Amino acid sequence: MADLIKIAVDAMGGDNSPKKVIDGLIHNHKKSKVNFFKIFGDKNKIISSLKDEIDDQYYEIIHTENFVSSTDSPLEAAKKGKGTSMWLAIESVKKKEADIVISAGNTGALLVIAKLNLKMIKDIDKPALSALWPNKNGMSVVLDLGANIECSSKNLFDFSIMGASLYTSLYPDNKPNIGLLNIGSEELKGNETIKETFKILSNKKSENYNFVGYIEGNQIMDGKINVIISDGFTGNIALKTAEGTANFIVKELKKAMTGSIIGKISSILNYYNLKKFKNRLDPRLYNGAIFLGLDSPVVKSHGGTDFIGFSNSLDVCNKIVKGNLIEKIKYNI
Amino acid sequence: MADLIKIAVDAMGGDNSPKKVIDGLIHNHKKSKVNFFKIFGDKNKIISSLKDEIDDQYYEIIHTENFVSSTDSPLEAAKKGKGTSMWLAIESVKKKEADIVISAGNTGALLVIAKLNLKMIKDIDKPALSALWPNKNGMSVVLDLGANIECSSKNLFDFSIMGASLYTSLYPDNKPNIGLLNIGSEELKGNETIKETFKILSNKKSENYNFVGYIEGNQIMDGKINVIISDGFTGNIALKTAEGTANFIVKELKKAMTGSIIGKISSILNYYNLKKFKNRLDPRLYNGAIFLGLDSPVVKSHGGTDFIGFSNSLDVCNKIVKGNLIEKIKYNI
Repeated sequence: MADLIKIAVDAMGGDNSPKKVIDGLIHNHKKSKVNFFKIFGDKNKIISSLKDEIDDQYYEIIHTENFVSSTDSPLEAAKKGKGTSMWLAIESVKKKEADIVISAGNTGALLVIAKLNLKMIKDIDKPALSALWPNKNGMSVVLDLGANIECSSKNLFDFSIMGASLYTSLYPDNKPNIGLLNIGSEELKGNETIKETFKILSNKKSENYNFVGYIEGNQIMDGKINVIISDGFTGNIALKTAEGTANFIVKELKKAMTGSIIGKISSILNYYNLKKFKNRLDPRLYNGAIFLGLDSPVVKSHGGTDFIGFSNSLDVCNKIVKGNLIEKIKYNI
Repeated sequence: MADLIKIAVDAMGGDNSPKKVIDGLIHNHKKSKVNFFKIFGDKNKIISSLKDEIDDQYYEIIHTENFVSSTDSPLEAAKKGKGTSMWLAIESVKKKEADIVISAGNTGALLVIAKLNLKMIKDIDKPALSALWPNKNGMSVVLDLGANIECSSKNLFDFSIMGASLYTSLYPDNKPNIGLLNIGSEELKGNETIKETFKILSNKKSENYNFVGYIEGNQIMDGKINVIISDGFTGNIALKTAEGTANFIVKELKKAMTGSIIGKISSILNYYNLKKFKNRLDPRLYNGAIFLGLDSPVVKSHGGTDFIGFSNSLDVCNKIVKGNLIEKIKYNI
């Protein structure tokens, strides 16, 4: 079993945990037996959810009495210290007992506890929160999504390296195009930090990515840019605005499709097509944010996702480790 | 005809002008004869598009030899000086010969030429670009959308006053809820400028609006907040990301609906409902950005809209003048 990827799992985070988390492990295990799960949390609850659905040799339970709650401030969570499932899961990657750690719990707490336990990669000043964003041709990597409200051009340059490394870990055959999120495509647009970053990226040519310049908000989903760079304030607002817009449109569509008898009948006829449409936009497909910049990989599953979304995040964990993300960042920086 | 609203129209801006603009005037005139148009541009082209569709007493043509092109930089446009249709249209509101000015031309040029000709309202430091944004219950006003990349808390406070005044000019019966666009709803989130603005807005109670605190990107379209305040960088990225997301989803939906014979048949059955859906999201409904902060109102129609979109912007012009926007801002500030 030496070639299994070892994933440290905080079983106690997110809505409906640990059941949702354990159901996700089971779902993932049944798809492909490529991961070993180190499960941290309340042993009794975990065992009752597991129901022998995963073979002994693919998991291990580490019982913890305590856990981080979704209402804990990052400081409160950190003060709970070593007793929580989140802390111990992160500590296990620090001790090299696991390759990667995943939690569906409190994002702020996860970031702070990860920073307390793990070292930053040399020459990177700030960790960033990145995620997959669906586009016309597949997925883009977008960062930072909220870890850093204010960023220097050095930070944004680091984000570019880290984002490109993540992209090639997930999609090994593609050389990514990198774009800087801005309010226009001309070189003179934007604030001083963005203009400085533009210069740095233009001057430092790399074999590992192409810098293509500025990208505007309406181009994010065009699929031409694979890695989109932003400070955490702007990136977070863009991500949430896109989510809100998608929800609004899908609700308006539902209203329109079920507004009359003919609407209802044709919606039934169209069931298969609408399902295809829904699947294409299914947020579970791109569930999971990745903290970049620490010397071990840390993945945050959405707290509100279900077991399938959690299972998809485990696939991302597997790809990140197999793609040697951390080594790639160290090499590229 | 003394109670007609006098609208100065730059006929030469935007795609397919002046025909599109003139068709918009005709469309608007046929809906309701409440506006008088002072039309600035190439007289021959304007007359050939007009074809006597508007009665003489509802318009006047002021011939201009020159116009601002979409590729002019704001500086180039300003250097063309008094000969252009855009300059003369703006000058006519300065001279009080018109109540409001509208152009579908070059946004940067319009802002610069407006600032050269018109005075700022006393105590307002920076003009802002605002627009209507569709939501679950109707429309919100969002500003700034790109006129100011960096803003102080005083600027953001001014935007709140101006946005609330615009909202009540358009929707006289409602007292607007104002929200500050941020990356979280807790008081501690965000950068220093946003936190300062939060304090200012919390301390200055007003009879004209309710300040409800922070709003996140995914709440913009919930319909609970009527006026959304942001610096121009963030606002522009949010607006364009929403546009891109809407385009992406509608294209994916089209693909799904026409992917099979059954899909095609049921789409035809569903024609009426899909049309309702399309109408609800029709960007022509909320066409038109409004420059706020100058002592006369200036409206920018989208360059790419058609005559119906332009006609809708003329309705917005009418409401702004009838709602005494400028007086409201002066009173509230």
